[in-house]
Amino acid sequence: MEGRVWNFSAGPSTLPLPVLEEVQRDLLNYGGTGMSVLEMSHRSKTYGGIIGDAEATLRRVLDVPSNYSILFMQGGGTGEFAAAYLNLFASRAVREKQRRLGRPLACDYLVTGSWSKLGKQEVERLGGRVNVAADGAASGYAGIPPAAEWTLGAPDETAFVYYCENETIHGVEVPPSAVVDAVDPSVPVICDMSSNMLSRPVDVGRFGAIVAGAQKNMGPAGVTVVIVRKDLLERDEGDADVTRALPSVLDWSYYDRAGSMPHTPPTFSIYVCGLVFRWAEQQGIRELARRRAARARLVYDEIDAHPAFFRGRVDPACRSEMNLVFNLPTPELEATFLAEAAERRMVQLKGHRSLGGIRVSLYNAMPLEGAEAFAAFMRDFYARHGPQEKD
Amino acid sequence: MEGRVWNFSAGPSTLPLPVLEEVQRDLLNYGGTGMSVLEMSHRSKTYGGIIGDAEATLRRVLDVPSNYSILFMQGGGTGEFAAAYLNLFASRAVREKQRRLGRPLACDYLVTGSWSKLGKQEVERLGGRVNVAADGAASGYAGIPPAAEWTLGAPDETAFVYYCENETIHGVEVPPSAVVDAVDPSVPVICDMSSNMLSRPVDVGRFGAIVAGAQKNMGPAGVTVVIVRKDLLERDEGDADVTRALPSVLDWSYYDRAGSMPHTPPTFSIYVCGLVFRWAEQQGIRELARRRAARARLVYDEIDAHPAFFRGRVDPACRSEMNLVFNLPTPELEATFLAEAAERRMVQLKGHRSLGGIRVSLYNAMPLEGAEAFAAFMRDFYARHGPQEKD
Repeated sequence: MEGRVWNFSAGPSTLPLPVLEEVQRDLLNYGGTGMSVLEMSHRSKTYGGIIGDAEATLRRVLDVPSNYSILFMQGGGTGEFAAAYLNLFASRAVREKQRRLGRPLACDYLVTGSWSKLGKQEVERLGGRVNVAADGAASGYAGIPPAAEWTLGAPDETAFVYYCENETIHGVEVPPSAVVDAVDPSVPVICDMSSNMLSRPVDVGRFGAIVAGAQKNMGPAGVTVVIVRKDLLERDEGDADVTRALPSVLDWSYYDRAGSMPHTPPTFSIYVCGLVFRWAEQQGIRELARRRAARARLVYDEIDAHPAFFRGRVDPACRSEMNLVFNLPTPELEATFLAEAAERRMVQLKGHRSLGGIRVSLYNAMPLEGAEAFAAFMRDFYARHGPQEKD
Repeated sequence: MEGRVWNFSAGPSTLPLPVLEEVQRDLLNYGGTGMSVLEMSHRSKTYGGIIGDAEATLRRVLDVPSNYSILFMQGGGTGEFAAAYLNLFASRAVREKQRRLGRPLACDYLVTGSWSKLGKQEVERLGGRVNVAADGAASGYAGIPPAAEWTLGAPDETAFVYYCENETIHGVEVPPSAVVDAVDPSVPVICDMSSNMLSRPVDVGRFGAIVAGAQKNMGPAGVTVVIVRKDLLERDEGDADVTRALPSVLDWSYYDRAGSMPHTPPTFSIYVCGLVFRWAEQQGIRELARRRAARARLVYDEIDAHPAFFRGRVDPACRSEMNLVFNLPTPELEATFLAEAAERRMVQLKGHRSLGGIRVSLYNAMPLEGAEAFAAFMRDFYARHGPQEKD
């Protein structure tokens, strides 16, 4: 559409244009109800249909097994850092295991970048016992230590294993089944998929829970999706201690029992997510995975063609296909790169303040043409600013 | 606008039409940025302006003193039930008072309906010591016990006093300064204003904190506004116990230090709130208060004209001007009333399932014409279905 930019933001991020057009069309009067979804009671029949369809569509797209609940919550990844820990330690399974052990179970964390580190710190803040099973800090989070080096705890001493599958700041992505392959099946794996959810198939049945903020591939900021195995929601009722540390607003079971509406949900944001889920279903999850690889390939090919100029920082074995980060030889060249990109209507390319450089985020809704335009710009920029070999 | 209904929902609820029209106009391309606010990075300069303006406008409209912070959070009233308790008990002021007392301070709750009751129960769940200083249960929450009967704790034994100023289910509203007038100024008063915030002036400086979900008078669901006195954010640093029970996502201080953006905020919902705040400023808070009284008067006049037919359940001294509840002589008549209202494009009038009957919610964005239409319908309904005195 005329006047739109290529928006490479790491999130919130570009949404499918047909979704935005539908939102715009229905903004004053949704489906003949005479009101906007922004104004609609969450207890109305129409809204019940909207949230029900959103849940059912996501379930189909990701092929979520029937023994998993899908919850729509609030608070993003930050909320789930705490919720994952507090809910697991309220579950019957973890409490029984802890009773057998006779002392606190540990929480295993794979620290692969800023977000998994924040997740670990939240558990420490709340008094949990953390075992860092792997830490990419030595490489500046430019790679992930191989599974053979992970120091996972013994299964009967471990409450869960937690990792973040895609690190938006460091541009590192864990291969699809690397973690569930390495962990004893008796230990629930909790995965933060905030930034790569819905971009490729996932074998949900191998996870204890998947948590994700919506604002990358799924919709607007303000919705958190939780997919959790139902047995982990089971509790010993009648024991006040079970939920003494767990505020209701973070309680997965509370949301599960009330169809994600124990109180007013973020109605409009869930509606937009539902439209994105439908769009994703129309594309197909395998096609979305094919496209994400194709988009990323275009940019990594330019990086690999001139590695001394486009300085990719991440081990190719765990390069993210969502957030691609690189530096140029000097900060001045980086500033010129960003300025020239903006002139071409390519925006939100500045790297995270902790790393500098360039970050190009290529989520589901970024058309291949956007990645092509960016790769062409990289070539052009190299031709004009790269080493003048022929001079 | 053609095709729109009169939407009397208790929340989410009707929004000002000019706000919706502006949202619709800018949905694909906000202010020439080439992207929707739905897609905009919260770290962009444009979004910094949007959230900064929202905060500044709300500060002007409610005349919020400079020693108060305004925070935009998530999780609604339910989140703040826990947050209020956990933040106060993390504050230096409360911890010092508790140290002096040598045992846990109590939390005083005024229970005036379902929402304050849920707030109280959340603190009990989290292990807090609650003192119910007043309880409207004996009257079925049709009235509020007079302040002279409240059993507030001694100031040096009380962490805070909590109340909900408007009960959407029971239709009870606490007069503006009734609570702050009754409480010792050394004890912070925490008020849940989810359903009457921004509908009348409030003397913010007399409160410890005001918390409110946005989805009544302020905007879409998914944003929680917290206005808190800055000294209550002060903590004893270096003491891990201070925040051991307080997840980051509920930590007022964490949001305060980061301008409400320690992580991705609900960007679009805050944007819409900002437009509503600007609309409210254009009307003026005193004018909004005048209008809310005028709207409610129209309906209560019909109730008072035929009290045996329109059976208002609430003590006139604490009738809500936001949510007006009444019953008709029979469930059959109530069903007919709702059906006939719907034919006149007046919707969302069914009372809460716990009370039945009729509930008409008249928030800021409901034009006087909407209340007039409803009152006219009540008269007409009475003429046709009321007692046939002349027969």
